[in-house]
This record gives sequence, C-alpha cells and structure tokens, in this order.
Amino acid sequence: MKLNIALLAGDGIGPEVIDQAVKVSNAVAAKFGHEIAWTSGLTGAAAIDAVGEPYPDATHEICMAADAVLFGAIGHPRFDNDPTAKVRPEQGLLKMRKALGLYANVRPTFTFPSLIDNSPLKRERIEGTDLIILRELTGGIYFGERGRRDDGDTAYDTCTYTKEEVTRLAKLGFELAMTRGKKLCCVDKANVLETSRLWRQTVQAMEKDYPEVTVSYEFVDAVAMRLVQWPNSYDVLITENLFGDILTDEASVISGSMGLMPSASKGIHTSLYEPIHGSYPQAAGKDIANPLATVLSAAMMFEDAFGLTAEAAAIRDVVNKSLAEGVVTEDLAGKNKAYKTSEVGDWLAANV
Amino acid sequence: MKLNIALLAGDGIGPEVIDQAVKVSNAVAAKFGHEIAWTSGLTGAAAIDAVGEPYPDATHEICMAADAVLFGAIGHPRFDNDPTAKVRPEQGLLKMRKALGLYANVRPTFTFPSLIDNSPLKRERIEGTDLIILRELTGGIYFGERGRRDDGDTAYDTCTYTKEEVTRLAKLGFELAMTRGKKLCCVDKANVLETSRLWRQTVQAMEKDYPEVTVSYEFVDAVAMRLVQWPNSYDVLITENLFGDILTDEASVISGSMGLMPSASKGIHTSLYEPIHGSYPQAAGKDIANPLATVLSAAMMFEDAFGLTAEAAAIRDVVNKSLAEGVVTEDLAGKNKAYKTSEVGDWLAANV
Ligand SMILES: CC(C)[C@H](C(=O)O)[C@@H](O)C(=O)O
Ligand SMILES: CC(C)[C@H](C(=O)O)[C@@H](O)C(=O)O
Repeated sequence: MKLNIALLAGDGIGPEVIDQAVKVSNAVAAKFGHEIAWTSGLTGAAAIDAVGEPYPDATHEICMAADAVLFGAIGHPRFDNDPTAKVRPEQGLLKMRKALGLYANVRPTFTFPSLIDNSPLKRERIEGTDLIILRELTGGIYFGERGRRDDGDTAYDTCTYTKEEVTRLAKLGFELAMTRGKKLCCVDKANVLETSRLWRQTVQAMEKDYPEVTVSYEFVDAVAMRLVQWPNSYDVLITENLFGDILTDEASVISGSMGLMPSASKGIHTSLYEPIHGSYPQAAGKDIANPLATVLSAAMMFEDAFGLTAEAAAIRDVVNKSLAEGVVTEDLAGKNKAYKTSEVGDWLAANV
Repeated sequence: MKLNIALLAGDGIGPEVIDQAVKVSNAVAAKFGHEIAWTSGLTGAAAIDAVGEPYPDATHEICMAADAVLFGAIGHPRFDNDPTAKVRPEQGLLKMRKALGLYANVRPTFTFPSLIDNSPLKRERIEGTDLIILRELTGGIYFGERGRRDDGDTAYDTCTYTKEEVTRLAKLGFELAMTRGKKLCCVDKANVLETSRLWRQTVQAMEKDYPEVTVSYEFVDAVAMRLVQWPNSYDVLITENLFGDILTDEASVISGSMGLMPSASKGIHTSLYEPIHGSYPQAAGKDIANPLATVLSAAMMFEDAFGLTAEAAAIRDVVNKSLAEGVVTEDLAGKNKAYKTSEVGDWLAANV
C-alpha cells in the first residue's frame, strides 16, 4: 500500500518527536511491504517566522492532498506573555481544524501497568481505566461570534450548535462504543444551556438506533468530579468543544502516562494524529523529550486512517517492549539509565 | 448581638443537616451572649410542591430582611429525567442568585489530617492543600441570551461580561489573597474567548493596586490538570461562572472531605452560606447524612457575615474534636460506631 502522509512537526520538541515517529513508521512500512511518501509542511511559530502566518495555504494544500496528517506540537513562549501579538500559533491550530473539518477529537486515556504509580491518583482508583473522550472540535464557543461593546467594557462570546453537528459527533461516539464497552456518556450542562439541551435531545433521539449501547447523561461538573473519583467507570464520553477542552486535559493527567497519550482528530477531508502533550519549549533541541506519545499517534494513524491494524499492533507492541526493557527517556527512567529521544526512536525502529 | 438569619432548608437531606447547624449555632450564640432570630423560607422542590415555584417571593423577602442566609440543599430526583418539566428546582437557585445579587461564590478546599486518606489522590499530592476558588456567580453564559433558530435545529447561548462585574469579583480575590498566601491565579481561556481577554486585561490593570500579591494567569484546561497534580500549589483562584462551576466541583473531590466542605456566596443584598454537597435524596429522612459541611458553613457565616471570629473558631474546634473522638456519621465511621445525624448535632451543640 502507498501511504501519503503530511508531516507537520511544529515547534519546540515537535520536530524531535516527529522524527522518531517517522523512523518507526518507516520500519513498520518496510516490514509489512508498504511505502510511505512523507510531505512536510510548516506550522505554528515556525511558520510565523518563515512566512508570517501559523497555518499557511501551502501547508493546507499539503494536508488536503494527504491521506493523513501526523502532527507534532505548536506553541512558543515568546507569544505567552504578549496578549497584543497579532498572529499567534494557536490561531493556526484553530484555522487548521476548521479548514480540514476536524470535527472530532478522539482522546483515549488508558494506563500502562508499569507506569501506574506515576499517577497522582491512588492505584485502586486508576487501575483498569480505559476511556475515550470524543470532543467536538469545530463548533461551539470556539467559533461563534465574539466582540466588544460599550467602548470595550463589555465583551461577549457566542456558543452555537446545530443538530447536524451534534449528530455527526454522536454517531462516532455510538459507533466507537459498539466496538468497546457499549457505554456512552453524553456530557453537557442541560440544566442551564440551550445548546446542551439540543445535544441531549439529539442524542436521546439516536438511542433507538443503537439498542445495545447504554447511554447516560451527566452534567459537566459531575463528570469533572467522577473523572478523579472513578475514572475506570467510564467507557466513551461525548461532549462539546469547550467542555471537551477541559475534560480531556483533566483526564490526561490521571493516567500517570500523560507523556504517552496519543490522539486523533477525525476530519471531513483528512484526519490528523498528534501527541496530546505540548511543545515543551524548555526541552527543545536537547534530545531528551519522550517520543512515545507521537509514536503511539502514528499507531492510531495506521489503524484509523488506513485500516492497518496489524501494523498498529506492531507499533504498540514495540512500545510496550521498550517500557518493559527500560529503553525510555529521562522522564520515565527514574534511577535507571535514561536514553535520548533519538536512541529510543532508533531502538523502536530496530525492534518493531 | 442580635442575628437575623434566614433559614432555607430545601430538599432531600437539607432539612436534617440544617437542623444540626441550627443547634450548633444556637449553642454558640448562647455561649457568647448572642441572640439568633431564625426565619424559615421555602425553596427548591419543597417550594414547587407548596406554592408552584422554586424561589417564591415570600422567600425572597425573608432573605432580603435577613443579615445572612443559611441554606441546605435543593434538587429532587423526580425532575432529573424529565427535561420537559416547566419548573425545576435549579431555576430557583439561579433566580435566587440573581435576585440577591450573589455575585461571588467562595469555595475553599482544604484537608483534615484524619481524613486525608479518603482522597482519591495520593497523600503527598494532597497534603497541605488549602485553596479557595472564587467563582463569579451572576454573570456569564448562565445569564446571557439563549434560544433556538431554524425550527429548533440550531441552539445558542451567549456569554457576556462587563468590566464592572470582573472588577467586583477580582477585588474580592485580591483582598482575600492579601489575608492568606498572597497568590492569585486568574483562570481563563484568553487564547480563545473575548470575555476571557476582558477578564485578563481587567485583572492586569488591578495588579498595581496590590503590589504584594503575585498574580498568575492560567488557562482553564491547564488548571483542570494542575488541580489534580499539585493542588497544594494554589492559594486563591478567580474565575468566571461556568469555569468556576466545573473547577469548584473538581476541586471538591480531591480533598477527601467533600462531605465537609462549606461555601459562601457573597451578595449585594445579603450573603448565603451552604454546604457544597447536594440534596442526596437517597439518604433523606434516614438521619444518616453528614451535617458537618452545613455546620462549617454556619462557622463561615459567623465569621463572614457578622465578624464573629471567636464564635466561628469555636464551631471549627468542636468539629475537629468530633472528628478526633469519632463522633461521626456512617460515611466517616469506617469500622467504628456510626452516629446519627441528629446525634452528631447534639454532641456538637453540647461540646461547643
Ligand atoms: C491552544 C488552544 C486553542 C487549544 C484548544 O483550546 O483547543 C488547546 O488547548 C487544545 O486543547 O488543543
Ligand atoms: C444546579 C446548577 C444550576 C448549579 C450551577 O451550575 O451553578 C450547580 O451545579 C452549582 O454549582 O451550584
């Protein structure tokens, strides 16, 4: 099979971790007789520096022409304390999501037995956790009308959802639940918000099409609690953009393996795969960043975008092997030898 | 001193826990030579049953005439699965907040050494946690324009904030920080929302008036993570209504003492004190609910609404004593003897 993949390395540690995912993907492709054509595009602060905008048209064309996009991380500290900056790396992210129609962010939270003690939660709370949050990514208050009135003294943001947007996301949620524990939790704030009432009503109407799926409806504040109390009681959660932003990040820290969590963003035109961690600028260029989340994102890509499940399994297996044998970067090494980012990538590619 | 207190017991376990707070308050008042006049009002499902609305005018008048309001809990399961119900207990809550101008919800999260092992978090993560979240309570998306378009297929909600609303809340935050660890964290989503940019800009302009306070600005998604990772790194957090709803609930479960956490809502007309737990309908009428959060809310009331700090300290001391001597309800008793709600109240009143 010929795989056309767009490669957006981005900022900070992005390029370093992406490099390892490329090595491992190429090794898997060679092993299974596929050929990968990688095409790189600029994004984030790197793109602002080069061409003045964080998601240039040229990058968009590369993504549109690809079968899948592998993404590193974006963001640079020089934008953090400058609220006046006209162009910001995050704008590129939002523009890209909209332009590629990346309507569903798929965020698994699971545990690695060997890393479970890194969790801030007690072992008995986190053990067995295997949940997926599906976050709507191209609607809601992120993309509604916003502005100022009264000489700037009043600000407003608008949250809008259509039945179609909710249906599209919920469908994915029901289908995903069918392949797993058959439990779906719709997270909303239907006791206050009209958009939440539309969500709830739309999902309720879909229940009859998936009689095997047990559906629950929970308020976002209650979910923020239960994710810390009993994360292993969840299977698939679906939610709107802003709630998803908060809950996926909350969920990410409970596993004890935040540096290892991959994600996918399902698109109308193409889908994108990326580690959930950020650009971690302090570590950039030092060859110390943990590449496993990006490598596991590549595994998601093989499975999701190309239906290549054996290839995905091969990547996951070699990652587990590297953990078992202690071929890990300093964040996981404890008192043992810490490998460099590139050494971990080389080892994975050699052992896949 | 003569204290006029409105008493809104509400639904579920509300009346039972409120009873104990009344006993303890009366005992403290007797000891320190105060006189309390309690006036009861209907609220929640109880009020819907009696007069058809969850926050009747008569109740509002009682609150307006009082120096402080002591509140139990509201909510009844018969409304939970009925999205068509025209009148709901929560509407009473929102109406009351608006009518009394309860603009700031003060939500402390702290730990009791003897209960720390109840936390889902590991001891070393939670130990030393003592933070307060100030949630704006009468603005934002809770009270903005909302509705439907396109035959009901499109829904919208509007989030609005004025500089005045932000200033009022932030002022309380700065002042509170001055009495504590002198750290203030403004929680927003200024990389996306215009209202958040107004928040950030308004707080930034106030920094110069509180040179001793160290102010940080963090995105809500990052705070949702750090609250689980390093809750003891926070002092005072200020945030808008919806973010506050989510984060205060998330924070409440980390202490391991959710059943003990009190809260205050500062008002323009009067202030209200209530336990953070809900109406817990399954336990209603069984004399088993833990009354300590309501008793500690009464302590907050003595201190906050009347400046009676010695009285507040006396209540907190007797609560600590009950914990130390194991005079606790079944949720805290473990293998030891469980006391009834009313027995705990009697013991506290006798020992204060
Ligand atoms: C950078 C920011 C705009 C973005 C978001 O809020 O969507 C980020 O937090 C994320 O979750 O990918
Ligand atoms: C019941 C609901 C409307 C309310 C809120 O969201 O404010 C509750 O969750 C709370 O936090 O007091």
